[in-house]
Amino acid sequence: MFETAELGRTISKADFKRTAPVLRQELLELQDTLHKNKDFPVILVFAGVDGGGKGETVSLLNAWMDPRWLITRAYDDPADGERERPEFWKYWRDLPARGRIGMFLSAWYSRPLLDRVRGRSDEAEFLKQLERIVGFERALAHDGALILKFWMHLSRDAQEHRLRNLENDPLTNARVSERDWEHWRMYDRFIGAAEQLVSRTNRGLAQWTIVEGTDPNYRAITVTSLVRDALIRRMDAKHGNGRDGKKPANGTAPLPDQKTDGYSAAKSITVLSGLDMSRQLEKQPYKNQLVELQARLHRLHLQAKAQNVSSVLVFEGPDAAGKGGAIRRINESLDARNYQVHGIAAPTEEELARHYLWRFWRRLPRDGHIAIFDRSWYGRVLVERIEGFASEDDWRRSYAEINDFEEQLIEHGTVLVKCWVHITRDEQLARFKLREKTPYKRWKLTEEDWRNRDKWSEYEAAVNDMVQYTSTSVAPWSLVEGNDKRYARVKVVSTFCERLAAALGDREG
Amino acid sequence: MFETAELGRTISKADFKRTAPVLRQELLELQDTLHKNKDFPVILVFAGVDGGGKGETVSLLNAWMDPRWLITRAYDDPADGERERPEFWKYWRDLPARGRIGMFLSAWYSRPLLDRVRGRSDEAEFLKQLERIVGFERALAHDGALILKFWMHLSRDAQEHRLRNLENDPLTNARVSERDWEHWRMYDRFIGAAEQLVSRTNRGLAQWTIVEGTDPNYRAITVTSLVRDALIRRMDAKHGNGRDGKKPANGTAPLPDQKTDGYSAAKSITVLSGLDMSRQLEKQPYKNQLVELQARLHRLHLQAKAQNVSSVLVFEGPDAAGKGGAIRRINESLDARNYQVHGIAAPTEEELARHYLWRFWRRLPRDGHIAIFDRSWYGRVLVERIEGFASEDDWRRSYAEINDFEEQLIEHGTVLVKCWVHITRDEQLARFKLREKTPYKRWKLTEEDWRNRDKWSEYEAAVNDMVQYTSTSVAPWSLVEGNDKRYARVKVVSTFCERLAAALGDREG
Repeated sequence: MFETAELGRTISKADFKRTAPVLRQELLELQDTLHKNKDFPVILVFAGVDGGGKGETVSLLNAWMDPRWLITRAYDDPADGERERPEFWKYWRDLPARGRIGMFLSAWYSRPLLDRVRGRSDEAEFLKQLERIVGFERALAHDGALILKFWMHLSRDAQEHRLRNLENDPLTNARVSERDWEHWRMYDRFIGAAEQLVSRTNRGLAQWTIVEGTDPNYRAITVTSLVRDALIRRMDAKHGNGRDGKKPANGTAPLPDQKTDGYSAAKSITVLSGLDMSRQLEKQPYKNQLVELQARLHRLHLQAKAQNVSSVLVFEGPDAAGKGGAIRRINESLDARNYQVHGIAAPTEEELARHYLWRFWRRLPRDGHIAIFDRSWYGRVLVERIEGFASEDDWRRSYAEINDFEEQLIEHGTVLVKCWVHITRDEQLARFKLREKTPYKRWKLTEEDWRNRDKWSEYEAAVNDMVQYTSTSVAPWSLVEGNDKRYARVKVVSTFCERLAAALGDREG
Repeated sequence: MFETAELGRTISKADFKRTAPVLRQELLELQDTLHKNKDFPVILVFAGVDGGGKGETVSLLNAWMDPRWLITRAYDDPADGERERPEFWKYWRDLPARGRIGMFLSAWYSRPLLDRVRGRSDEAEFLKQLERIVGFERALAHDGALILKFWMHLSRDAQEHRLRNLENDPLTNARVSERDWEHWRMYDRFIGAAEQLVSRTNRGLAQWTIVEGTDPNYRAITVTSLVRDALIRRMDAKHGNGRDGKKPANGTAPLPDQKTDGYSAAKSITVLSGLDMSRQLEKQPYKNQLVELQARLHRLHLQAKAQNVSSVLVFEGPDAAGKGGAIRRINESLDARNYQVHGIAAPTEEELARHYLWRFWRRLPRDGHIAIFDRSWYGRVLVERIEGFASEDDWRRSYAEINDFEEQLIEHGTVLVKCWVHITRDEQLARFKLREKTPYKRWKLTEEDWRNRDKWSEYEAAVNDMVQYTSTSVAPWSLVEGNDKRYARVKVVSTFCERLAAALGDREG
């Protein structure tokens, strides 16, 4: 989930200086319109890793906007008046009126998360508290509130680095407390709980954006751009485009050119651009490793069969990435009676007549069996999103539906492996051309494949979102560098082996 | 919650014979249209108390409709194929396609409820399972499914009676199992868990209707009418009125006249019509009892103050029901520094600019204090519903919001007392006339009061729904027979005493 916020995204000082004044002006005008129309309240929640820039971002928004119509709330240890009423009383009390913006630091997320990390609550209690938050935010959203939630992330190392820097600077030294270091030492537990928190409370009307918190310029421009975009979308939906049919006051500030905007440039860095696509394996080591891995997989799958452990494998990736070849290397190790490959193309009439997940539920393997999906339910947030087959509401909601579906698989004891086999755009072109030239491969290449190529960057963004919302510690995505088929195949087979071995308690003989 | 399904509603044989053929024809035609248009699937869930008529109702629907487009599913102990996959696999597998109707007996509600009743799961685990159901139904509803859920209720005595009758009839004897009697012996625990189940899973897109299960005619006509109405509403929303702009096939069967329909007649019986409005108290016993109760309340409220226990009292009821008089009898016993009466009229501008619950949250008492609400958040599901100030979506959703709000009060340790002070329509008229004649009371009577009188039966239905969805074992409604002011006042003061005493652990000196 948080791997999408450890990519080293930055915005240069020059880009920041160019973008910031425009954004600032836009935000001020939007705030003015909001205040005049009083159509809805805006609730911004900032939570995340200590040192991820929650406070700085809120300060920046306070500096950029008109503080008269802005409230900022952080909650320390509860005062008497707060302790003497239900916990949420203080949050209700502080809710902004229509036309105003309220910024909440950690707020209702703080106690559930810290209680869980410190072991003061068990998982069921934690989930119950998160459900209360969902109910609270749902009530506000149904009442019209625009709710944006930002999770400011830092990697463990980046957090340590940042805390040290703050400590070493006499100006900021006082801002680092023992509690910050205590949190840092609990980083892994914190992140595990945070993952559940974000995925459980990421509902349609109150979604999280995970923001990489390392670079101050990047996170400032990211948050403010998203606030601006959300305000514009909501106002346009309410009053038609141009807010009330008019251009923004002063007729200035059209939306910045997305192509030259520093934020957009930084945004085009995705989990995929972080991959080292030059990875490869020579022929002989490949053969040796593959034989060994396949033998191991063969033993493991028999063991899984004996222990009634089922597996579900999901393969996604660009056309011609080599999913089929990788799948075959797995099949070669398996007892044919024991697995089924499901190539997922357009749904049948029977499938179209039901919920999109129905066709995957009905293909779930029995205990001890293996189902391999060559493309899968992730089509919902990839091709269906990009081609507009699913509405934005539909595909956004499906992250939670998919997480719930996979959670049920895992609870049942199924081993779930999800591989994104990736190739670069150039490599795809080379493979397409090869297919055109090879008579027995020509059928594999369609018009649609060429069309999909034009949407490369849209797919990259969609994959990034997919990893952000559906890669969890219990059901992680494995990103496979596929420009070299040998490297990819070995990585895929080895990934399945590792996951199986872990599930079987590593008791392989 | 279930008190609304213990009112002895029946439909006479004659009414049934007159209504049933019309309904049956309508259902068949609607089913035909549904099947032709294939716009959405219909999911009917039947759950409830054993003997409440789940099976009989499903059989009736099977007999009345075209079985080709109907599937019925009951789930016994799981078969191997089911056990070997995640629990919900079997439900997903059986989901009806668009254009078809699926009827599910207990289904996904069965295990969570029985596990809870038998003590195999704790409350947090139970709530987690209910959340999974909510997610499942939400996914189906967002996909377009029309979901209706019927909770077939019987009182403990009615259940025993029915089981004995079934046992004594050789034709039905085999239908009563030891498990049925086991459930009957656990009736109170079953109902406690059922209350949580219904209130937690009663979401906007998949709502429960609680059906009184004693009379077969009543429950048959109730369920089939509701299915018919929901189908018509959904089809009209999709295709405009008259389903596809056309009259139903054959041009027959307009909606039955609501006034002569047996179901509507039975429906007009509400929790209010069950009250014995002739209850009264003579002057002297009244005085004696009131003095004693007020002294007790005085002691109890000092004790509550010392123990930092806060109280919230809610008074609702028709105009001129005597809420103010009852409240004064409470105030007379309290230390003036310790309580606050909030008369709730039209919201202020500041309140209108926020969620409707905001103005009640901000008035919550500190520990040890008492807040008395003369009218309250229940305005949402009473006057706002009836006057159309809130949309149907809004007021329906607010039952869950209110339950959540009150749950937070109770978790905090607040004593919550909710009184509906009732008078008959005739008594109200007499009091209005008296007000007109009494110069110092004339200000109390407005045009609006007269207008509200015309909506008496709408208010009765709204009160019935309110009690159904918001009267829970932790936050029950007290219905106060108010035609005699003395009786009402004594009952109100005594109710508050009892609740306070229970909360303080009955340690009064």
